[in-house]
Amino acid sequence: MFTFSLTKKGAGTGGRLGKVITSHGEVTTPVFMPVGTQATVKTLSPQDLRDIGAEIILSNTYHLFLRPGHELIRDFGGLHGFMKWDRPVLTDSGGFQVFSLADLRKVTDEGVTFQSHVDGGAKHFIAPEQAVEIQEALGADIIMAFDECIPYPATKDYAQESLERTHRWARRCREAKRDTGQALFGIVQGGMYPDLRKRSAETLVDIGFEGYAIGGLSVGETKPLMYEMIEATAPHLPADQPRYLMGVGTPEDLVEGVDRGIDLFDCVMPTRNARNGTFFTSFGKMAIRNSRYERDSGPLDPECGCYTCRTFSRAYLRHLFNAGEVLALRLGTIHNLTFYLDLMRKIRKSIEEDRFREFKKEFLAKRGQEE
Amino acid sequence: MFTFSLTKKGAGTGGRLGKVITSHGEVTTPVFMPVGTQATVKTLSPQDLRDIGAEIILSNTYHLFLRPGHELIRDFGGLHGFMKWDRPVLTDSGGFQVFSLADLRKVTDEGVTFQSHVDGGAKHFIAPEQAVEIQEALGADIIMAFDECIPYPATKDYAQESLERTHRWARRCREAKRDTGQALFGIVQGGMYPDLRKRSAETLVDIGFEGYAIGGLSVGETKPLMYEMIEATAPHLPADQPRYLMGVGTPEDLVEGVDRGIDLFDCVMPTRNARNGTFFTSFGKMAIRNSRYERDSGPLDPECGCYTCRTFSRAYLRHLFNAGEVLALRLGTIHNLTFYLDLMRKIRKSIEEDRFREFKKEFLAKRGQEE
Repeated sequence: MFTFSLTKKGAGTGGRLGKVITSHGEVTTPVFMPVGTQATVKTLSPQDLRDIGAEIILSNTYHLFLRPGHELIRDFGGLHGFMKWDRPVLTDSGGFQVFSLADLRKVTDEGVTFQSHVDGGAKHFIAPEQAVEIQEALGADIIMAFDECIPYPATKDYAQESLERTHRWARRCREAKRDTGQALFGIVQGGMYPDLRKRSAETLVDIGFEGYAIGGLSVGETKPLMYEMIEATAPHLPADQPRYLMGVGTPEDLVEGVDRGIDLFDCVMPTRNARNGTFFTSFGKMAIRNSRYERDSGPLDPECGCYTCRTFSRAYLRHLFNAGEVLALRLGTIHNLTFYLDLMRKIRKSIEEDRFREFKKEFLAKRGQEE
Repeated sequence: MFTFSLTKKGAGTGGRLGKVITSHGEVTTPVFMPVGTQATVKTLSPQDLRDIGAEIILSNTYHLFLRPGHELIRDFGGLHGFMKWDRPVLTDSGGFQVFSLADLRKVTDEGVTFQSHVDGGAKHFIAPEQAVEIQEALGADIIMAFDECIPYPATKDYAQESLERTHRWARRCREAKRDTGQALFGIVQGGMYPDLRKRSAETLVDIGFEGYAIGGLSVGETKPLMYEMIEATAPHLPADQPRYLMGVGTPEDLVEGVDRGIDLFDCVMPTRNARNGTFFTSFGKMAIRNSRYERDSGPLDPECGCYTCRTFSRAYLRHLFNAGEVLALRLGTIHNLTFYLDLMRKIRKSIEEDRFREFKKEFLAKRGQEE
């Protein structure tokens, strides 16, 4: 099952509150989805995810298709049964990874042929119908239409040609999708061309999906251009359906995205940064390996209530990173994801209390100052 | 504070039950100490250690002296305050690591000069007085006398000469030790020579320590020879003081050690094996990467109640290892340490119930069959 209901429109902002209901539970939007590429949010157990308050996670179709294989995962009850996460899951379509990770791609109208990065160059073929079939096997609550991701910059001719194909593929995904109880989202593309973005949104809405994603952003363009593309898209998507900004972004991007009407986000930034020893905090980013923290007895972030901040000193965390200890990666991930999830909680609260714009102003001013 | 009391002598075995009381709590012996070399039991948080029922852990003086430095750790309240583990800790003296890890060692009667493996070849000097001072700064509940570890095989002349030095060092450690409330253990050496082992035990008892360790075993000798050396030593140690077999060993070694009167054990085997995907189970060792587990929906060990076995399938764990996921290391470590700690619980129960020998017979028969 899948329903989305808008519970509140924010005052003086495109930001809104909503509720997604799936057969694995409810999600309050706007929400951030930790990325669990290979059926695990790197370093964390399902218990850890529950402890930090994650409501929904994302997993990557491309990686799981290659290893361990979607059929194996289906036999274990889908991703939920395989990784023992009983709350909602969203899978991407594999499109982005095929275009960014695979070798020797050959794209035709039919689909994409490619060699994988994990199984010694075996050849694979994914068409829209396969992308849907794989995601049905993975069993996520929300699945995505197969799309083509174009590089940045791209000419308008190329962007337009690719977009037409993405639309044809979206239609084929819609047609291939069986009655599994999973929601299928379409993905708006169109490069950095506002008119193509608008057309893409309208075309997909015409096909009809349970939700709509904005793809192809955060690929090297400037922040103003990214925000412009969101503005060129969101108004053309149905107000009563969820909007998902794919692969974005920084804490600032989340605030800007919400302001423009986005309901769902995912990004590897908090988890990947954590594993490099870079932390998001209430006073900006910090690199724990910096020698200034060598004897620092304070928590990573005094305003954070996560296990890491409640328990350990900066000096100890710095030691773990310097000594190459695996525990560092988990403790850092717990903190960075808590920071992101806390931010979303604060955003939701500020919308609830009709003070999102004030929240945004303060938040950006504080980070601009201290980062 | 430190006290040891013998609470029960086993029937028909050298095995016994005891209680260690320290200012960080009690430990029931025989006990296995997980190894936390760099102020962390690799992959586990202090919460994880509590969850699996660890009562006492070991940390390595040599590593902590080099990084982050014992003075820093002292300023954070010792190891307990630094790593946030509030139960007992034992530190080794650094002797074994100086002899196995450091470069360009120069051993004199005064002490050992060496270059370290972590700080770009800086020169360091550790004498018995320094080993005690470093361990006082680290603040463990039990600290060890500085000893020389000889290679195997070694001539009797060399073993004897080294042993005399180890005894002189033990005396200097005893004299250097201040009134810190920490227990100081002496380390019996003597290579594979029963008469030297006996002499070493007697000499150390004469100096007088709060407990006695048997060092220099599990260095390449056969199992029968190792057990023979324990038998040549333990009877010459005071029955009312704790006996610690250093760096040993397999589950079978723990059972054999207890039978010969050992109270404390430590070994990297469960943690290191876990990180390689090799697990200790009730039916012997298993390598999770084996393709036979690809679609295995059962737990690692059906007789184990750890978080890993309660939650995940072999197929999922195999996937995590194959995909190089960090979570695999922690889940594996939780299981292997639980196996070791459960084994010690079973051993203690069987001594309590006067059926240790039956337990031992069944345990060894089962593992001999299936491993």
